[in-house]
Amino acid sequence: MNNLSFPAGRALDFIALGRACVDLNANEIHRPMEDTVTFTKYVGGSPANIAIGMARLGMCTGFVGRVSDDQMGRFIVRYFERNGIDTSGMITDRPGSVTGLAFTEIKSKDDCSILMYRDHAADLNLEPRDVEESYIANAKALLISGTALAKSPSREAVFVALQYARKHGTVVLFDLDYRPYTWASSEETAVYYNLAAAQCDVIIGTREEFDQMESFERHTVKDDGYTAGKWFDHHARIVVIKHGKDGSFAFTKEGERIEGTTFPANVVKTFGAGDSYAAGFIHGLIQGWDIARSMEYGAAGASIVISNHSCSDAMPTLAQVEDYIALCRSGRFVSQS
Amino acid sequence: MNNLSFPAGRALDFIALGRACVDLNANEIHRPMEDTVTFTKYVGGSPANIAIGMARLGMCTGFVGRVSDDQMGRFIVRYFERNGIDTSGMITDRPGSVTGLAFTEIKSKDDCSILMYRDHAADLNLEPRDVEESYIANAKALLISGTALAKSPSREAVFVALQYARKHGTVVLFDLDYRPYTWASSEETAVYYNLAAAQCDVIIGTREEFDQMESFERHTVKDDGYTAGKWFDHHARIVVIKHGKDGSFAFTKEGERIEGTTFPANVVKTFGAGDSYAAGFIHGLIQGWDIARSMEYGAAGASIVISNHSCSDAMPTLAQVEDYIALCRSGRFVSQS
Amino acid sequence: MNNLSFPAGRALDFIALGRACVDLNANEIHRPMEDTVTFTKYVGGSPANIAIGMARLGMCTGFVGRVSDDQMGRFIVRYFERNGIDTSGMITDRPGSVTGLAFTEIKSKDDCSILMYRDHAADLNLEPRDVEESYIANAKALLISGTALAKSPSREAVFVALQYARKHGTVVLFDLDYRPYTWASSEETAVYYNLAAAQCDVIIGTREEFDQMESFERHTVKDDGYTAGKWFDHHARIVVIKHGKDGSFAFTKEGERIEGTTFPANVVKTFGAGDSYAAGFIHGLIQGWDIARSMEYGAAGASIVISNHSCSDAMPTLAQVEDYIALCRSGRFVSQS
Amino acid sequence: MNNLSFPAGRALDFIALGRACVDLNANEIHRPMEDTVTFTKYVGGSPANIAIGMARLGMCTGFVGRVSDDQMGRFIVRYFERNGIDTSGMITDRPGSVTGLAFTEIKSKDDCSILMYRDHAADLNLEPRDVEESYIANAKALLISGTALAKSPSREAVFVALQYARKHGTVVLFDLDYRPYTWASSEETAVYYNLAAAQCDVIIGTREEFDQMESFERHTVKDDGYTAGKWFDHHARIVVIKHGKDGSFAFTKEGERIEGTTFPANVVKTFGAGDSYAAGFIHGLIQGWDIARSMEYGAAGASIVISNHSCSDAMPTLAQVEDYIALCRSGRFVSQS
Repeated sequence: MNNLSFPAGRALDFIALGRACVDLNANEIHRPMEDTVTFTKYVGGSPANIAIGMARLGMCTGFVGRVSDDQMGRFIVRYFERNGIDTSGMITDRPGSVTGLAFTEIKSKDDCSILMYRDHAADLNLEPRDVEESYIANAKALLISGTALAKSPSREAVFVALQYARKHGTVVLFDLDYRPYTWASSEETAVYYNLAAAQCDVIIGTREEFDQMESFERHTVKDDGYTAGKWFDHHARIVVIKHGKDGSFAFTKEGERIEGTTFPANVVKTFGAGDSYAAGFIHGLIQGWDIARSMEYGAAGASIVISNHSCSDAMPTLAQVEDYIALCRSGRFVSQS
Repeated sequence: MNNLSFPAGRALDFIALGRACVDLNANEIHRPMEDTVTFTKYVGGSPANIAIGMARLGMCTGFVGRVSDDQMGRFIVRYFERNGIDTSGMITDRPGSVTGLAFTEIKSKDDCSILMYRDHAADLNLEPRDVEESYIANAKALLISGTALAKSPSREAVFVALQYARKHGTVVLFDLDYRPYTWASSEETAVYYNLAAAQCDVIIGTREEFDQMESFERHTVKDDGYTAGKWFDHHARIVVIKHGKDGSFAFTKEGERIEGTTFPANVVKTFGAGDSYAAGFIHGLIQGWDIARSMEYGAAGASIVISNHSCSDAMPTLAQVEDYIALCRSGRFVSQS
Repeated sequence: MNNLSFPAGRALDFIALGRACVDLNANEIHRPMEDTVTFTKYVGGSPANIAIGMARLGMCTGFVGRVSDDQMGRFIVRYFERNGIDTSGMITDRPGSVTGLAFTEIKSKDDCSILMYRDHAADLNLEPRDVEESYIANAKALLISGTALAKSPSREAVFVALQYARKHGTVVLFDLDYRPYTWASSEETAVYYNLAAAQCDVIIGTREEFDQMESFERHTVKDDGYTAGKWFDHHARIVVIKHGKDGSFAFTKEGERIEGTTFPANVVKTFGAGDSYAAGFIHGLIQGWDIARSMEYGAAGASIVISNHSCSDAMPTLAQVEDYIALCRSGRFVSQS
Repeated sequence: MNNLSFPAGRALDFIALGRACVDLNANEIHRPMEDTVTFTKYVGGSPANIAIGMARLGMCTGFVGRVSDDQMGRFIVRYFERNGIDTSGMITDRPGSVTGLAFTEIKSKDDCSILMYRDHAADLNLEPRDVEESYIANAKALLISGTALAKSPSREAVFVALQYARKHGTVVLFDLDYRPYTWASSEETAVYYNLAAAQCDVIIGTREEFDQMESFERHTVKDDGYTAGKWFDHHARIVVIKHGKDGSFAFTKEGERIEGTTFPANVVKTFGAGDSYAAGFIHGLIQGWDIARSMEYGAAGASIVISNHSCSDAMPTLAQVEDYIALCRSGRFVSQS
């Protein structure tokens, strides 16, 4: 049991809103991208990855977003459909936009970077009118991604979705997902993150992302309890602050502080850990599990994804997560490092 | 007495934030602008006009805004200073921007229009960092103007100012002041007007402006009570809805509905009525007068301004307002129409 | 007689192409614009002024350009029509653009400056398709203004007009008219000025403007003869280089160097001198006068305009020019300085 | 022997100017891109391909262009260096731009398409100051590509390079290379193609590209002789008009019309044929071969490239071209279709 109450009798368990892009992962790993030759194409983008993760975990999942009117956009929609995601809330953008690209470079398991193509990305063309009130009203939960706040009209579409969600009691989860390259300034980021966070039930981010939101507060002590506490004066009931290898902490409006567990992994790359974590965690919350168990499933999912070459394609099923937890618990996990 | 509590012991009574521009009013009235030959230059822009009105009424008044680095920008700052307005919160914009212009055309007292020059207007370059927390914290009241929400970074500067005002108990008044030409879409307008209004203590606008804010609500009955009531769930305590010649109505969180009075006028043009109304009304509220009396002073101020050629330059002193009310009450007002 | 051969049997003597704007001249002169109060509205813009000057001198004159779809644009077209200029080649721009404005500040006769409003100016929206081949083919001469090269699509419209003019033997005159504020870089200016000048029969500019065109030539000696000589390898037959108070010099393909005369003036402001000079000079060339006499009429026209408050409205008739020359020659000119 | 005279004693035989990009060729061919999974990365872009082709044929080759400050940009420069191309004229662009991408889709040998990423492409940021006069002065030949004319400041850089080339007698070859997606309008294209072509010694394009240049000429008969003839009034000495499978025709200022030969190929895709043709043809011209033989080597090179998966990487050496010609002439060529 947790402190959220998801509305019953809704057609969809979960909707993600925002960007769905393409990852081009270098097949030749452990070298700079100047020296890589071939790339494999995957669906990518944080909300897309989380939606895929949720569908794999058995949730009735939908997606709201714009995709480009080309082969890349159609590839994304088809991949979603093959994974059982409802795409009736997706719009094909007018010609002229492209699908965002992320070329990943894996120099070592600790030195990964991304080369982004985000100019004229179709996902940021999402318009307020694209968001159907009835679609939001028919889901138990809505996930918004901070990147969707980076530009108009996608920014306004997020605020309209938030308004519909609050009106209809759809639980709103905010994955901060801060990507500096699409923002005009860090002040702009802080303004819109704060406006959005004030309307969300669950806020999930790294310590650095929360710092970013507090850039107008001078002399901030960067205290997790303080950071989380502010949002409980608004609509938040759970705030999760992630500290990378130092673990993650969930705070509740009721005053609890829950430390998350971690699982070992044979790390290929670090990308995708957060998305897989979010899927596992949110799945647990919707199932009505307590927060600690939800965090555990999130952490196991993260370990699975970082042990694989892709993000989206490696999202685990519920059985895979439970097997992984069992394996780790059994002491039979073999580290390859 | 009214239902607002203005903090005591503040250096400034009132700050307006937003655009300060130049009006170029045709001297030859009652003809189309194609046939006008000479123009007189005045300071203009709704928040600038209100600030001037407040200073004339004896309030300690400040202004937050950017002006262009040229003769027009310096003209505005000098005019403010001559009117006793504190300009320490004003910033000279970097080169490349201009002062917004409004050429007024007065074909008849009922047929007035404006030709705007608003590209690269300095006022919309106001940045979040331009808004000093201590400046907002040292004022009893802050007026924001809807036009300042029309573009980044001015839009974000407004939200930062709202955050500071709420933090420090500065009473926030929102003059909707909707000007379609600076907005990308009516949906964008609705989104930001709603986000801002949720943080304001007093909201003042025309029925059409409130309709604009409700554009995402289908089947709206356009009922003033409904419209006002929504905002009392947030921070609002007073909502004023203006119906042009059919008068204005103030609604309070406590459930009152107060109809405003009107005064006769020998109308030259209709511009500036709303700004003069706002100054007279807000002055009354800060003085602690009841709402009805505050509305009366606002209405008298409006009648004075529309009887003159300019907006800003015609803003009345307290004595002029009271004389006008007395004149009208005495039955000695002479209509020239 | 001069070295140009204007085609006979054409409906129009002269077409100017480019910007037609509005000047707002401060009525209170000899003070900074911060302290001016009223402005008088005139048609302005170099090619517009020259067209008005040509019409006043009795030439059958047309104009190719876009004007804004508002009162300012209609004012320009009506003024042209009242001056007998053919406006069939003028296009009303789509909504969204404005008429360029020039606020003039006359601190003293030697210290004049201009505050420009040129964002989204309608004249720079002139498109290649706006230029009718038959219209160019029916004129003896075409004047292009350098400012029209500052931005697309006006830039391309100029090159299309040049192509039509060369194809049909219409004599092309290039008034350099360099205004830095509309150009992205001085290198961009040099590139397009050089491309255009290579196709012109007559090139008129100040020494500084020709320097600007030579910015890719290092170690240039800034020698008028060298500068003029380059263009005779292309299509030029006359190059006029103006040195302000030090007079102007015309160079011909045949190797002549003709020094212009000057006339006294009771100077109000310096604006408009070049445009009036161009009108007087080009009128003479089309009449078949020799270059020296054409320059004399240009110089007298310039002196008349700088003695008046406006540019366009002060453009003299042929009788006025001849009276002015006679007055100066008679020794009865009275200097008021 | 041909009708061009290449200057002797120059450090470089050939410079190409313009875009150097990345091709991502689907490894799974004969299917739509929605269904392709992996891509191989190659250097691409017409002038880059031609430069690589020239270097393979043994020419001392240089390149003038901007590349992005990232892994893609460094990949291009390193590939050039490995192929012996002088990169001293290449500039690393400031951060914020990207390398243009071309995802190729090969549905069948006759149905190939490209998905382009060209927003903020570094190559179009080439500035006039990037073009060193001495670098152009030290080459026998300069190739410009029409795509470099598509946007400022690259457009102006081309005109500056043309000016330097004409000044120093560097032979200029113009590969029309028209790509509609980077141009604002077809009229803009026609204007700048015509301005550039007037300054070139050799013009190479498809019939459709020449039609594009003639869009201002109504009732054009689309006659190759007429099209080529126009340019001989300017600086052109050779004009090559390509008709796809119907062969190509070279026209000379001296009045010759030379029909090109073609060679069989086991076609994988059609991309790169034109670039390989250009390299083979221009190599012959610089060697002083007659036009017919130069065209033959171009045609053989084209057949070699379209039989391979890549464009740049498949550019043949002189020995490979001569072997291919010999193979075809011998009758031993085996068609696999």
